[in-house]
Amino acid sequence: MSDLDRINDVLREGSPVLWECLSPLGRRVAFPPDIPFQAAEARDTRYNATIGQITDGDGRALAVPPVEEALSGLGPEARNQALLYSPVQGLAAVREAWRSWQRREVGEQVPSSLPLVTCGLTHGLSIAADLFAGPGRAVLVTAPFWGNYRQTFEVRTGARLRSAAAYLGGRLHPRALAELAAQEPIGEPVVAILNFPSNPGGYMPSAEERAELVDSLVEAAEARPLVVLCDDAYAGLVYEQEIPTGSLFWDLVGRHERLIPVKVDGATKEFSLFGGRVGFLTFACAPDDPMAEALESKVKCLVRATVGSPVATSQVLLLEALGRVGADRHVEVLRERLARRYRRLRRALSQLDPELLGVLPCNAGCFALVELPEGVDPEAARRHLIAEHGTGLVAIAPRYLRIAFCSVREDDLPALVRNLEQGVAELATRRSSAT
Amino acid sequence: MSDLDRINDVLREGSPVLWECLSPLGRRVAFPPDIPFQAAEARDTRYNATIGQITDGDGRALAVPPVEEALSGLGPEARNQALLYSPVQGLAAVREAWRSWQRREVGEQVPSSLPLVTCGLTHGLSIAADLFAGPGRAVLVTAPFWGNYRQTFEVRTGARLRSAAAYLGGRLHPRALAELAAQEPIGEPVVAILNFPSNPGGYMPSAEERAELVDSLVEAAEARPLVVLCDDAYAGLVYEQEIPTGSLFWDLVGRHERLIPVKVDGATKEFSLFGGRVGFLTFACAPDDPMAEALESKVKCLVRATVGSPVATSQVLLLEALGRVGADRHVEVLRERLARRYRRLRRALSQLDPELLGVLPCNAGCFALVELPEGVDPEAARRHLIAEHGTGLVAIAPRYLRIAFCSVREDDLPALVRNLEQGVAELATRRSSAT
Repeated sequence: MSDLDRINDVLREGSPVLWECLSPLGRRVAFPPDIPFQAAEARDTRYNATIGQITDGDGRALAVPPVEEALSGLGPEARNQALLYSPVQGLAAVREAWRSWQRREVGEQVPSSLPLVTCGLTHGLSIAADLFAGPGRAVLVTAPFWGNYRQTFEVRTGARLRSAAAYLGGRLHPRALAELAAQEPIGEPVVAILNFPSNPGGYMPSAEERAELVDSLVEAAEARPLVVLCDDAYAGLVYEQEIPTGSLFWDLVGRHERLIPVKVDGATKEFSLFGGRVGFLTFACAPDDPMAEALESKVKCLVRATVGSPVATSQVLLLEALGRVGADRHVEVLRERLARRYRRLRRALSQLDPELLGVLPCNAGCFALVELPEGVDPEAARRHLIAEHGTGLVAIAPRYLRIAFCSVREDDLPALVRNLEQGVAELATRRSSAT
Repeated sequence: MSDLDRINDVLREGSPVLWECLSPLGRRVAFPPDIPFQAAEARDTRYNATIGQITDGDGRALAVPPVEEALSGLGPEARNQALLYSPVQGLAAVREAWRSWQRREVGEQVPSSLPLVTCGLTHGLSIAADLFAGPGRAVLVTAPFWGNYRQTFEVRTGARLRSAAAYLGGRLHPRALAELAAQEPIGEPVVAILNFPSNPGGYMPSAEERAELVDSLVEAAEARPLVVLCDDAYAGLVYEQEIPTGSLFWDLVGRHERLIPVKVDGATKEFSLFGGRVGFLTFACAPDDPMAEALESKVKCLVRATVGSPVATSQVLLLEALGRVGADRHVEVLRERLARRYRRLRRALSQLDPELLGVLPCNAGCFALVELPEGVDPEAARRHLIAEHGTGLVAIAPRYLRIAFCSVREDDLPALVRNLEQGVAELATRRSSAT
């Protein structure tokens, strides 16, 4: 029996629901007994001539001197690791350390796999898309959503992106995804994306909203296999005391046999490692579960097919950050800095004329959303704010502007909001004088 | 007119042949006017709140201290660049510097685009696969070939990988790809992969073989649109004086209007930056050609959809290596070190019993191939060499073992070859005593 057949059998028997959710591509991938596989088997040989990377013959990197100097802040072992190939699944120490980091407030009885390393969080999403999306598959999101979902899920795999309003009457609508799911034929597998704290929303659900959201997804799984991708890009960045901070992934694990939660997270925001591209893909099964091994084989095949192996250099940087006592303190310093900006921005936004600009719920993440008055086009507003007010925001159809307060100095936020108000008022006036 | 329509029109008019070669996915991608696009437009605003990365508000990274210390070998500007998002197309300075590096022996009249940065060379291949392969498309390679082509081209996109023997009578067969192309229906576009220096072959064509190879591909383009992907992973690693070292890409540019050369290369081997994942994708048109802009839009969409953005950290490392006077000297030191191993290995291989082990032509790259006697299975030989001789090699069907001399100490190579000979002799004896 081929490796692919064996792995597919494990999945089919372990979870017929997960098997049903796999895309055609997801069904045909398995990590091949190729060079990385053979190199792993030869790891302890005296004469190891398996792998095509240039070393001194004792497994040490032969860096060019300027690169070696640039990484002189690392110890010799870490520098070697940074310069040589990472295993396709990621460095073992990084996977272990990230799993501990993910689970630092999670009970032992809740299973999760050893995370697989990807080339940034987007790569984790695109591999999840390869596994579970595909031609015709419904992928459900709430609007406004991160635009790149369209490229990653719809354009690449041929899935159908279906969206519904995230907010109703100025509040989060927790049942939006479940209602979207109900529009698909009964029995038909669907993929739902949860992104909290949200981009572009900057919102994390309250305890009540969270319970309603989770329950509605569990109910939706009565009618169909339901893959729930938790895009936890902004994990931990929550600024109000009473809001639960944990990933919704943990609330979904084990809730329904037809509900398959998948966690996609990364070092990008939590460890401010934007340029490093270290993401992770985690499944809701224990590390020693044969399901975990089978899914790992599929993910490794896709990682190998798309990028060869994940970035070793920035895995080593992340390991430095995770390995020291006080990783949580470093992250907390960053969160507190953003929390100050958040409070300053909230104060400025609270003084806006609500007739002119609506402010959507915001308590987390990196962004706040404002809603433009009817008849003011967001793209026109964006250009006007750049040209006339030296203010750069992101336009989001049909009528939003997104403020990325994560990249603006605290003291600049009031002026930014004044510019926004003034620029939009000018456009609103033009519009009314034109009519 | 949408951006996608505009870009497709540019390609259709600029090169109907290239348009014909694009896959269905290649035809439907264009970089969307999304956040990176809007962020680029807002670059000079006083209050820039476009991009979701955490900065001090003046565009400087807020690193956690252990990461900052690890990168203390970089100046503050370089460290910032290493930690923040790279533009989707790559850092401008890296693209310029790599173009100069690529073209250091190329005449001004030969056009090439500004290289697009990918997450390692494999990512460049997988994006080329997304653009030009796809369901049913014939992708031609010579055997033995790098096994990952199967995952990258065939498994992912649904293309048909067709292969023919690279060697005939113990010598390179330069017309192998052209003969494969001739087996496809006339007029049907095909993709051919050229990989020189080769993996697993360790071979670079002689001047005569190169001329015959190039001419045969030009002739093949008479019968059909022909995309030639030059996988230049091992560029520059050539160890015999009389062998031309340049990429075959340059010999193919402008040779036939139905021949579309694409260059895929990277810092991985040339700059010994295996863990960094910096690759490049280069087209055969001038940087200011509208075709270059249109192809760039398509590649950027695929980079964004698969990994978000390329790794900034290792682009900065490569820039350090490229930016200093003497980059070519650093690379030459590495090449000379490998050349010494190559000579030592050749000497050891020349003493093998030719009845037992054939040695395939080898003059370049990181590898040498030996051919096993009939009836000795390469996988069995591989396992036997690990278990009984502490020697790790890679098995390649139908009857090869690959020696990666790039990762073995010069002084260990004679012993490695002795182990190989002894282990294979044991298996050959077993086989004859069994019959």
